[in-house]
Amino acid sequence: MIVGIDLGGMSAKAACVEKGTKTEVVRIATSSSDPAKQTISSLAHLAESAAEAAGIPFDSIEAIGVGAPGIVDSGAGVVAAWTNFGWKDVPLSKELSELTKKPVFILNDANAAALGEATYGAGRHFSDCVLVTLGTGVGGGVVLGGKLFEGFKGAGGEIGHTVIRAGGRKCSCGRRGCLETYVSTRALIADTVSAARREPQGALSKALRAGRKPDGFLLFEGLDMGDPGAEKVFQQYISMLGEGILNLASLFRPQAVLLGGGISAEGERLLGPLRKYVDERLTAAEYAPLQILAAELGNDAGILGAAEFARQKVGKDGQN
Amino acid sequence: MIVGIDLGGMSAKAACVEKGTKTEVVRIATSSSDPAKQTISSLAHLAESAAEAAGIPFDSIEAIGVGAPGIVDSGAGVVAAWTNFGWKDVPLSKELSELTKKPVFILNDANAAALGEATYGAGRHFSDCVLVTLGTGVGGGVVLGGKLFEGFKGAGGEIGHTVIRAGGRKCSCGRRGCLETYVSTRALIADTVSAARREPQGALSKALRAGRKPDGFLLFEGLDMGDPGAEKVFQQYISMLGEGILNLASLFRPQAVLLGGGISAEGERLLGPLRKYVDERLTAAEYAPLQILAAELGNDAGILGAAEFARQKVGKDGQN
Repeated sequence: MIVGIDLGGMSAKAACVEKGTKTEVVRIATSSSDPAKQTISSLAHLAESAAEAAGIPFDSIEAIGVGAPGIVDSGAGVVAAWTNFGWKDVPLSKELSELTKKPVFILNDANAAALGEATYGAGRHFSDCVLVTLGTGVGGGVVLGGKLFEGFKGAGGEIGHTVIRAGGRKCSCGRRGCLETYVSTRALIADTVSAARREPQGALSKALRAGRKPDGFLLFEGLDMGDPGAEKVFQQYISMLGEGILNLASLFRPQAVLLGGGISAEGERLLGPLRKYVDERLTAAEYAPLQILAAELGNDAGILGAAEFARQKVGKDGQN
Repeated sequence: MIVGIDLGGMSAKAACVEKGTKTEVVRIATSSSDPAKQTISSLAHLAESAAEAAGIPFDSIEAIGVGAPGIVDSGAGVVAAWTNFGWKDVPLSKELSELTKKPVFILNDANAAALGEATYGAGRHFSDCVLVTLGTGVGGGVVLGGKLFEGFKGAGGEIGHTVIRAGGRKCSCGRRGCLETYVSTRALIADTVSAARREPQGALSKALRAGRKPDGFLLFEGLDMGDPGAEKVFQQYISMLGEGILNLASLFRPQAVLLGGGISAEGERLLGPLRKYVDERLTAAEYAPLQILAAELGNDAGILGAAEFARQKVGKDGQN
């Protein structure tokens, strides 16, 4: 039995995990004003609470896996940089291990979600998967041969920050034309609102004037209402996301690309046109087919993936 | 001792390889009009010739590695498609193994060059390298943890066919804006000639009128002659190649990107501006630095890489 922890900027959640099944999730609030040592001490208590909530003696916990924000050097067990919390080179593995007397393995939180989703969620039938999470930003992770791929010092797998239109939209990372600037929920909402502005008599515009708050689903309501601007935005969204997926296919050629984030709840409505766009352009598509699937685990993916990461490491250590 | 074979559309070359050192290279002509069985039979003789030329009894050859063009399913030992030779699902490993009584391991030729260059060439000090070969097209391969990364059924690592400017230049693969359409030698030459046409009084234009044949080095001569059009083409070339390398860094985050192909002979003149472009934009550059280096092995990379691939496979089989 392994404790998986999903550490975030608002809260940390934990549960005991075995074979991809988790027990009751316990949580604590986290705060950027707490010193790192205090946060880590809270995580130690959280791990014990998870065991207690599951009715499992803490002694029988084999290891702890933690998905943490920022740049994580999983090999060294160090959070190299978590800007929002002011963490720099925090030896999270070592310190949490000293407090809990358990082996602790850490990884980036988006990578944890990818490993969880690939192992126990929509990717469970495939050995190679890329998770693309469409949120305020675009994150995700890469799982190859059932193992997380992180790149040199964990700095790889930055799916949102690959340029897809050189010289295009300005990105927060400093480059121009990153995938994130076209397919994040933030970009989708901004494009939907722009389309509404261009057609003041259109359905989107009317909805906004009537007080509809813009979110990632507004575009789809615009499509339902037959707004021509919405249709254009949707076509561009599909083509840019499609090109991003095709690029991942050119490089990693996974068996499956998994789409996470709120918008993936649109299901076939999003996946259908996307699959069509990709299948029409994918080289050797019949020879090495690529599945495009919606993620299944939602918020659970992080805990399950963090636990899976620890499970694989403990298993590997056992073999050596 | 292992025989490495580099199979191409004009010739096949082979040598015995041990610890990255090869003996005399022997070669035969290849022809698309020969049936696959005949070509494979020639390869069997070629492997024996390589041993003979090296003064090594063929009995002491442990295995044969073959880099072959096209889509290669190295796991199955099958050339899935080599269009120019009309090969489709040719079981090269099995047939060559039957003729030579040796274990035979095959891989894509660009991947063989990448593995050779990463293991014994410019990448020898790094465990994770991406080779980008700037030729008529843009090829290369990905080596992670010292092992070749090929993707599902060998269809990954297609570095040239990642879109970098969505909606941009038409590519032979059917998509628009692939890296290859901006940074291949073919693209570089076309852009140089276009620049010359725009300035009939410029140095580039005069050189072409005086009978200079356009090639990949013409641009650099134009720079020497102070042609303003050449400078513009060079800046665009650096920025597109830089964006391509930054994209590889975002996803694979290798320790080194190795540049192959004729143009890499320009050395610092190309590498200097390219490093500057990349370093100014690479996230976490100090934390996880990325080297950009010229490939060193030239045409030898393919033979060395094919042999290395076989060496790793034989070693692995031995361990099981």
